[in-house]
Amino acid sequence: MPSFTVFKGSEDGAPKKSITSKPDTLLGDTVLVRITASGVCGTDLHYKHKDMVLGHEGVGIVEGVGPDVQFLKAGVRVGAGIYQTDSCGLCNFCLQGEEIFCPKRAIYGGSNLDQGSFASHGIWREAFLHLLPDSLSDEVAAPLQCGGATVFTCLHDARADETIGIMGVGGLGHLAIQFAAKMGCRVVVISGSESKREQAMKLGAHRFISMAEGVPELEEDWRLTKLLVTTSAQPKWTAILPLMAPKSIIYPLFVDPSNLNIPYMPLILQGIAIQGSLVATRAVHRAMLRFAALHKVEPIIERFPMSEAGIKEAMDRLEEGKVFSRAVLIPQ
Amino acid sequence: MPSFTVFKGSEDGAPKKSITSKPDTLLGDTVLVRITASGVCGTDLHYKHKDMVLGHEGVGIVEGVGPDVQFLKAGVRVGAGIYQTDSCGLCNFCLQGEEIFCPKRAIYGGSNLDQGSFASHGIWREAFLHLLPDSLSDEVAAPLQCGGATVFTCLHDARADETIGIMGVGGLGHLAIQFAAKMGCRVVVISGSESKREQAMKLGAHRFISMAEGVPELEEDWRLTKLLVTTSAQPKWTAILPLMAPKSIIYPLFVDPSNLNIPYMPLILQGIAIQGSLVATRAVHRAMLRFAALHKVEPIIERFPMSEAGIKEAMDRLEEGKVFSRAVLIPQ
Repeated sequence: MPSFTVFKGSEDGAPKKSITSKPDTLLGDTVLVRITASGVCGTDLHYKHKDMVLGHEGVGIVEGVGPDVQFLKAGVRVGAGIYQTDSCGLCNFCLQGEEIFCPKRAIYGGSNLDQGSFASHGIWREAFLHLLPDSLSDEVAAPLQCGGATVFTCLHDARADETIGIMGVGGLGHLAIQFAAKMGCRVVVISGSESKREQAMKLGAHRFISMAEGVPELEEDWRLTKLLVTTSAQPKWTAILPLMAPKSIIYPLFVDPSNLNIPYMPLILQGIAIQGSLVATRAVHRAMLRFAALHKVEPIIERFPMSEAGIKEAMDRLEEGKVFSRAVLIPQ
Repeated sequence: MPSFTVFKGSEDGAPKKSITSKPDTLLGDTVLVRITASGVCGTDLHYKHKDMVLGHEGVGIVEGVGPDVQFLKAGVRVGAGIYQTDSCGLCNFCLQGEEIFCPKRAIYGGSNLDQGSFASHGIWREAFLHLLPDSLSDEVAAPLQCGGATVFTCLHDARADETIGIMGVGGLGHLAIQFAAKMGCRVVVISGSESKREQAMKLGAHRFISMAEGVPELEEDWRLTKLLVTTSAQPKWTAILPLMAPKSIIYPLFVDPSNLNIPYMPLILQGIAIQGSLVATRAVHRAMLRFAALHKVEPIIERFPMSEAGIKEAMDRLEEGKVFSRAVLIPQ
């Protein structure tokens, strides 16, 4: 096998089938993975016009290992081709287990552009692959690799008595509700309308707020100690800030090139923090997989074929807000 | 003594001498304090048109105590009439030592309007007075009661190997430089021009950056892990963000009714937090006083008489940016 199939962004935004060449021999600690499922994430949409292989929520089966690989073997299932695929290993951030902030990090969209999880295969370093618990199926595990990691990293140091707000019930939000509820937190879901109330409550929410009905005054005990903003764009901050508890933390998780524009004095008078957050470190990623397996946190998925047409349809539907909750590509 | 002298804000913004009546007998846990020094803080300027007693950086001598007072006695020196003067004592914030966020907190400008530290005397609850270490003189201790507490609360959980940025070398900044340096941190001062370089270095800064010279590219080890923005207005965020380390915290300490307007994606990609912060809890306030006494952290002060004319001059000069670094009112 001198090469494998990949799907790249293109000028017109429709994914194009292409080829990445494969070395004759796997070198060092690299691992060849055959992709068996890949989630489609909002971040993929931002790169659909770029000449790079798309996809960063991969799951697959190891087909071969380089001579320095220590733990992985052919046949095991891994999370692969995910948001971060390398770091230097030697800087202060790497040394402290914060490799996601390594100045030389390889992250999606910036490095490793000839590989991704919209592909038949990929070759990645063992250190950035994650063995999957048996109870997580491929298609269920795929959206956890970025979406799951992104929300879990904001939640995993929450105390069980906290009141967690989840704004938005989509790809990230519907996972965050489950994680927070299974962590024993009180979960308040905030949505633009009533339409997702039943779904949110079924996923584990304790209260549901429809912003269309106006913003309620929350009793003190129900004010949010953490809020994950999983909407696709900047929310109406004036409506949200009165819901926040003193000393609470807002995690904005949308991707938006414009400035954050938020009332200032409430942040000071209530000691509120806005915390930037980017997927997860590898240690937190693995904790997320263990937690999801034990507590049966599972994305709701919609399947599409891993083909030019299938990927285009999945990305178009995601862009139009028609995917509830996570699109997953399956090889044909 | 059926009453005492106070100085209030007024329609034209010039402080007006007035009278607050005093009960015949001190009740409960209240303490009568004779003010011996008061700092003048930027926050006082925001209330100069309001019909309320000004001043929240008071220091004084106890002259009398109510029947339920436990520790204070006539003759001892205390920080008094400071930013927070009461809380409920029973809510979850009070129970966790976070009384500054008590929903029923009494804070400057909102409660206790007939008392303040621009006065001959005041009566406050023992629980919100702070015994002063002997080595801090009255006039040195006064600016610590708000300015010192405000910067110390952002710094006191810093590790000694952190690189602390202090933006602005005024009332707050010149205290923050000293605290951070005495905590063993690396201290980088950022100022609008070269004019305060010598002063900043003398106070303990290790590096001085003049924004007028353009923003330097900091070596990785010198990127800021915490930044205290002590300027009087919102800084130019685009120039500041490249100075921040991944996972760093920005503490904006200015008072500004407009929105915070800050580039968003750098917060996400570098995991940066904006942390709202409001003076200090009482426990942190007392730690600040102990630390200042042990390490000789002292404000640079400019004295003004505690009189209508003296207060007006101090406030005018502060507003014009002519006070380096903290104005202190002394009774005549």
